[in-house]
Amino acid sequence: MGELIAAMGIIRNVFDKYAGEEGDKETLTKKELSKLLREQIGEELSSKEVDEFFDNLNEDGDSVISYQEYITFVAMLMSVLG
Amino acid sequence: MGELIAAMGIIRNVFDKYAGEEGDKETLTKKELSKLLREQIGEELSSKEVDEFFDNLNEDGDSVISYQEYITFVAMLMSVLG
Repeated sequence: MGELIAAMGIIRNVFDKYAGEEGDKETLTKKELSKLLREQIGEELSSKEVDEFFDNLNEDGDSVISYQEYITFVAMLMSVLG
Repeated sequence: MGELIAAMGIIRNVFDKYAGEEGDKETLTKKELSKLLREQIGEELSSKEVDEFFDNLNEDGDSVISYQEYITFVAMLMSVLG
């Protein structure tokens, strides 16, 4: 197995780790996303900023971030970081 | 630094490794993409399959795969693999 598949596995594991903390283990609540951003990206966001971030990611408008929405976020982040 | 940032770094390094083999070091030629697929994903594609794959990824229709197009591919792959 190449590094690429291993890296994709890590990205999946990060999602699972935070998604598993409360509520549905297949989705990120706002609290879980906030913790993920703080611990993984080092972004300490205000409550208002987390709200905005959450709404941007939450493409289908439900109250949680799905794995698909998380992938979109990771791709966006990779694109910005170059 | 969290595992997420580390994983994104690995994905970037995989691109750089193959993109650096021939021609422009910032893009993947068809040959470089073919090698990346073979070594990283374990996909041994026929010449026709590589052509089709390349054309699908190559959103802007030039003759190489940019980092942006590669990110789209990785996101697509993560989405399929779940």
